[in-house]
Amino acid sequence: MEAVRHFQAALDALRDRLLQMGGLAEERVRDAVGALVARDEALIATVLEGDEPVNQLHVEIDDRCFRLLALHQPMATDLRTIVAAVKINTDLERVGDLAVNIAEAGKRYVSHPPVKQLVDIPRMGNIAQSMLRDALDAYVRRDTALAQSVLDCDDQLDALKTQVFRELLTYMLQDPSTIEPALDLILVSRHLERIGDHATNVAEDVIFMVSAQDVRHHPAPRT
Amino acid sequence: MEAVRHFQAALDALRDRLLQMGGLAEERVRDAVGALVARDEALIATVLEGDEPVNQLHVEIDDRCFRLLALHQPMATDLRTIVAAVKINTDLERVGDLAVNIAEAGKRYVSHPPVKQLVDIPRMGNIAQSMLRDALDAYVRRDTALAQSVLDCDDQLDALKTQVFRELLTYMLQDPSTIEPALDLILVSRHLERIGDHATNVAEDVIFMVSAQDVRHHPAPRT
Repeated sequence: MEAVRHFQAALDALRDRLLQMGGLAEERVRDAVGALVARDEALIATVLEGDEPVNQLHVEIDDRCFRLLALHQPMATDLRTIVAAVKINTDLERVGDLAVNIAEAGKRYVSHPPVKQLVDIPRMGNIAQSMLRDALDAYVRRDTALAQSVLDCDDQLDALKTQVFRELLTYMLQDPSTIEPALDLILVSRHLERIGDHATNVAEDVIFMVSAQDVRHHPAPRT
Repeated sequence: MEAVRHFQAALDALRDRLLQMGGLAEERVRDAVGALVARDEALIATVLEGDEPVNQLHVEIDDRCFRLLALHQPMATDLRTIVAAVKINTDLERVGDLAVNIAEAGKRYVSHPPVKQLVDIPRMGNIAQSMLRDALDAYVRRDTALAQSVLDCDDQLDALKTQVFRELLTYMLQDPSTIEPALDLILVSRHLERIGDHATNVAEDVIFMVSAQDVRHHPAPRT
C-alpha cells in the first residue's frame, strides 16, 4: 500500500508540474504578443530573457517521468498517462521557444514605424492561448470532448494566418518601406499557428490516452 | 531466456522501423527541395500526396514503444532507449510534415517567374538531410561524438537562413513583383531550419540516453 500511495503522490506531482509549465508557457505567449501589440520594449526584453524557468521545468518533468517508469513499472492507464506527459512536456517546451521567437520578431518590428493597427495577431494569440489551456485541462480531467474542441479551433488559426498573410502582402506591394516589418508580422502569425499545432498535439495525446484506457478498462468506468 | 530473446528482437525491430522512418523523412525533404529547385510540378505533387507512409510508421512505432514498455517493463538503458524512440518518432513525423510545407511553398513558388538562381536553399536542404542521417546513425550506434557534430551543424543552418533572408529582402525592395515568390523562399528556408532543429532534438536525445547510461553503469563519479 505504501508503494501505491507513493506512486499516486508522484503522479499527482507530475500533473501539477505539467500544469505549472503549461501556465508558464501560456503566460509567455501572452506577454510576447501583448508586448508586440503595445510596442513595449521592456516586456519584449523580459520575454527574451525569461526562458530559463520553462527549460528547468522541462528537464524536471522529463526526469520525473523517467523515474516513474523506471521505479514503478506502471501498466495500462498509468503508463499511457506518463508517456503522454513525456510528449506534452516536449510540446510545452517548444511553445516556450516560440514565445522567444515572437519576442525576437517583436523586437525587430518595433524598430520600424507600425505597419497597421494589429487586430488579427492578438486574436490569433488569444485563440492559441485558450487552445493551450483547454488542452491541459483536458489532460487533467481526461476529457476527450474538450480535447476534441481544441482540434476544432485549429482551423480558425489557419484561416486567420492566411488572412494576415494576404492583408500584409497588399501593404508590402503598395509600400516597400513596410516590407521588413510586415515580414515580421507574417512570421509572428506562423509562430502562433505553430503554438496552436502544439496545443493540437497535446489534445491528440489526451484522446489517445483516454480512448486506449476505455478499450482496456471496459466496461467499468474509472474515476 | 525466451522472454529476453523476444525483448531483444522487439528492440531490434523498433530500431529498424525508426531507421526506415528516418530514411523516408529524409527522402521527402530531398524530393521537396529538389522539386522546388528543378521547378518540377509532378514531383511537388508527389511530395504533397505522399505523407501517408510516414504517418503510418509514426503510429506503428508509437505502438511498438508502448507495447515494449507495457509488456517488458524495461529498466535503465533499455527504458531510456525506448523513451528516446518515442521522442525521435515525434520529431521524424514533424519532418515529414515540414516536407509537405516545403512542397506547398514550392507549388506557389513555381507559379511565378523565378526570383533568382537557388544556391543557399539547396545547401540548407543538404545540411538538414545530413543532420537527420547523422542523428539517426548516432542513435543506432549510441555515438555521442556524432550526435555532438549534429548539434554543431545547427549554426550553419542558422547563418544560411539569415543570409537567405537578407538577400531576398534586397530583391523584394528593388522589385515588388518578387515579393510573393521571395516570401515563399523565406518560408522554405525557415522550414529547413526547423528540420535542422528536429535533427538537433534527436541528437540531444541520443546524448541524454547514452550519458545517463554511463552515469548508471559507472559506480563512482557522479556530481
